[in-house]
Amino acid sequence: MAEMEEKLEDLKTRLAEINDLDMISSLLHWDQSTYMPAGGAAARGRQTATLAKISQEKFIDPAIGKLLDDLQQYGESLPYDSDDACLLRLVRREYENAIKVPPEFLSEFYTHSAASYQTWAEARPNNDFRSVQPYLEKTLELSRKFGDFFPGYEHIADPLIDLSDYGMQAASVRGLFAELRAQLVPIVKAIRSHPIADDSFLHVHYPEAQQLKFAGEVVRQLGYDFNRGRIDKTHHPFMTKFSLGDVRITTRVKEDYLGETIFSNVHEAGHAMYEQGIDMALEGTLLANGISSGVHESQSRTWENLVGRSRGFWEYFYPKLQAEFPAQLKGITVDQFYRGINKVEPSLIRTDADEVTYNLHVMLRFDFELQMLEGTLSVRDLPEAWHERFEKDFGITPKEEKNGAMQDVHWFSGFIGGAFQGYTLGNILSAQFYSAALAAHPEIPDEMKQGQFNTLHDWLIQNLYRHGRKFTAVEMVQRVTGGPMSIAPYIQYLKTKYGDLYHL
Amino acid sequence: MAEMEEKLEDLKTRLAEINDLDMISSLLHWDQSTYMPAGGAAARGRQTATLAKISQEKFIDPAIGKLLDDLQQYGESLPYDSDDACLLRLVRREYENAIKVPPEFLSEFYTHSAASYQTWAEARPNNDFRSVQPYLEKTLELSRKFGDFFPGYEHIADPLIDLSDYGMQAASVRGLFAELRAQLVPIVKAIRSHPIADDSFLHVHYPEAQQLKFAGEVVRQLGYDFNRGRIDKTHHPFMTKFSLGDVRITTRVKEDYLGETIFSNVHEAGHAMYEQGIDMALEGTLLANGISSGVHESQSRTWENLVGRSRGFWEYFYPKLQAEFPAQLKGITVDQFYRGINKVEPSLIRTDADEVTYNLHVMLRFDFELQMLEGTLSVRDLPEAWHERFEKDFGITPKEEKNGAMQDVHWFSGFIGGAFQGYTLGNILSAQFYSAALAAHPEIPDEMKQGQFNTLHDWLIQNLYRHGRKFTAVEMVQRVTGGPMSIAPYIQYLKTKYGDLYHL
Repeated sequence: MAEMEEKLEDLKTRLAEINDLDMISSLLHWDQSTYMPAGGAAARGRQTATLAKISQEKFIDPAIGKLLDDLQQYGESLPYDSDDACLLRLVRREYENAIKVPPEFLSEFYTHSAASYQTWAEARPNNDFRSVQPYLEKTLELSRKFGDFFPGYEHIADPLIDLSDYGMQAASVRGLFAELRAQLVPIVKAIRSHPIADDSFLHVHYPEAQQLKFAGEVVRQLGYDFNRGRIDKTHHPFMTKFSLGDVRITTRVKEDYLGETIFSNVHEAGHAMYEQGIDMALEGTLLANGISSGVHESQSRTWENLVGRSRGFWEYFYPKLQAEFPAQLKGITVDQFYRGINKVEPSLIRTDADEVTYNLHVMLRFDFELQMLEGTLSVRDLPEAWHERFEKDFGITPKEEKNGAMQDVHWFSGFIGGAFQGYTLGNILSAQFYSAALAAHPEIPDEMKQGQFNTLHDWLIQNLYRHGRKFTAVEMVQRVTGGPMSIAPYIQYLKTKYGDLYHL
Repeated sequence: MAEMEEKLEDLKTRLAEINDLDMISSLLHWDQSTYMPAGGAAARGRQTATLAKISQEKFIDPAIGKLLDDLQQYGESLPYDSDDACLLRLVRREYENAIKVPPEFLSEFYTHSAASYQTWAEARPNNDFRSVQPYLEKTLELSRKFGDFFPGYEHIADPLIDLSDYGMQAASVRGLFAELRAQLVPIVKAIRSHPIADDSFLHVHYPEAQQLKFAGEVVRQLGYDFNRGRIDKTHHPFMTKFSLGDVRITTRVKEDYLGETIFSNVHEAGHAMYEQGIDMALEGTLLANGISSGVHESQSRTWENLVGRSRGFWEYFYPKLQAEFPAQLKGITVDQFYRGINKVEPSLIRTDADEVTYNLHVMLRFDFELQMLEGTLSVRDLPEAWHERFEKDFGITPKEEKNGAMQDVHWFSGFIGGAFQGYTLGNILSAQFYSAALAAHPEIPDEMKQGQFNTLHDWLIQNLYRHGRKFTAVEMVQRVTGGPMSIAPYIQYLKTKYGDLYHL
């Protein structure tokens, strides 16, 4: 047994080194997005590639495979829920995947992605889809090639979906989305037959410094720990982590829209509180991460929407907000404010969409990913297909490609396939986890009205966050809710909230 | 020949990867000093150690030794001044040194240094020398051990001096310093017989934002390129580089002292302009660095003192400074200002010292380093020795150890030996290089009065900066000045400037 513990120690030491390199990569990216001067870009690209290469080399080292083989039986002999058993299962899975992908392929893909992103960033403001088309075609080719490294799949997208939402497949996501869509469309339709809520008061001048101060105070009170984090400004908000003791978020400000900073802060703080809540005993291992795209997004959406756009939340915060911006919010009641921040309206941009129509944006992208991978939709025809589908789903058409097929960075900096389903899985799971929390602690909504969020936060830490990546999404949903993934709580949530708001 | 070029390419690829890792280490340190939340410290230490370990492993790889052997003859066949010949000479030298030091020793030293630094940082405010004494004793032991990896030295400090000022030895520095001291002491004495200049106007309230704005504008005008750099605040100012396209400086502000931000900015910008001036063709190789501590410091001191504390410089900038701070500088003439910023007065803190007494601080430390390494001064007796020597050299005695033997971070985060001589070598070289620039361009001082610094800047780029580390300090002094290192220009500079200021 001492021999096994020694081998496990050896494995952990190797993984800790790889984890260090990956955390450092995140710092390179954070710096590039926040403070790096323009002149640093070329070298930064090389540095990022060097780290990725070394990390990959160290992970696919046959010595790791040998250690995993030697430890297989030992791992199976440990309690299923123990940290070590979970680690060995996860590392085995990741290792088996990693060794299937040749380093030269990854290197080619990273180089291509960097060029693709660069071209997209320049072509997007000009709605110049034809410039990015060859890059996107190459991305599609490489995405298919990636899928082919994992023979035995049912759908070519499955290995790509596996990367971010392990355990889901094209078929299972399709099924779930079809079910959701059938419920969502009538809700959207019903809401659209009512007058659109007025949110014009959100679109007057709100000075940057005040917005940042208020939004920072909000996330502090929710439970984001500034001793282990900080907020900086970037073009696009994100959460990133350099260790469990250093989980940062970024934000942006629109001085003519109050919702931007507050809700992006709360969204990213939701991601960050998940990471900050992981048990420190898992630090430095692959377990010190969120489970999947979907589960991670469930936490950003829990805090952003279920908490941050709730009536109770604003009962507490609105008087403070009004005190910060007395002129701008003069005469606006908390009810008017609550309606304003929950306005439902078909819109062109996914990230700006309300929580009801949001999923239709995601489904459109998910369907197109599958069609492109299947070969039933060509990259060349993507803009036109986007227009048609958009007209059908939303009753509006993007006039410019930057608001259409060139809108999201995902396909221009990563694979086509697996990029979007996590957003809607996150919405579904947020309501499912939250309803379990409410079942355990019915006092949560009342506490929120008092500015108390720790019962919810503690419950999430205890039931979800602290476990890191010890369990799969499927296992975690079962552990937390006692059943499989289900859209029922989410539909229930939407119907109650928007039924009430729009008197449906 | 094609075979040699292939081997050279292989070597360069390996070195570029190592260079990437080292540049990334600098980013980790920059982030730790600027923005990292407290919670990130533990993991950051591990990440830094991981990078250093991988970089060292990759550099002492016998494959590099083999390539160097194979390329030896080829390198010697190239023109001496060619980039490739210089690279091969430098890499050979660094490689031979690196393989002499066992990785376990480095690892022990880094771990010890981190603990030593931590203890010092906590003990220093309490003047608690006894807490740091065992760490310093261990540092001394490890410094001797390091020296012993390089048998054949004349003085045990020589291998340590070599690390930062290649080509100098304990004996040659001693000789130079004795010569300088013999000239300096009478100058200090003469100045001290005159009334001390009034600089009380520098010590009124100067708001932080205005100081940062002005000091930023100054370095921009000197030639620091903000497209390839930026300024952030840290506890101690420093310059750091992540590539030739990203050379950052840091600064600090004392709202009750105008000199702090301006002169630390100009000092660090001097270091940075040196790095920014290196030929982009050298990027990613060991050549894309400054030559030595002494040569690097010569450039920070050139811009800080020879330029930044000159009469001509302030003839241009003082009206702007006065416009920025009209109340604080009301009635202060440019002459009074010039005298104030060049006040000579014995003081306890090296980094705050005027340019005349500064070198006495350095010599004290250099002498103590040699004595400790020789065993003629014990760590235990260091505080008392410091008091005695200080009384003798400056006529004052530090009452607290934080202003005495616990003042500088160097011995508490690195070796004892080689840590300080570069500061005075830098002063000597600054005047020597600058007088060569003046000989070539006598118009430089007049241009400064017009706010023009590009003749000097271009000359330095052309003659010094662009070459990076292609030549040794000895070679560079010869190339630029036509002779060996000499204290004459520095003494001449001090005598002229302070003779004039104090009517000696």
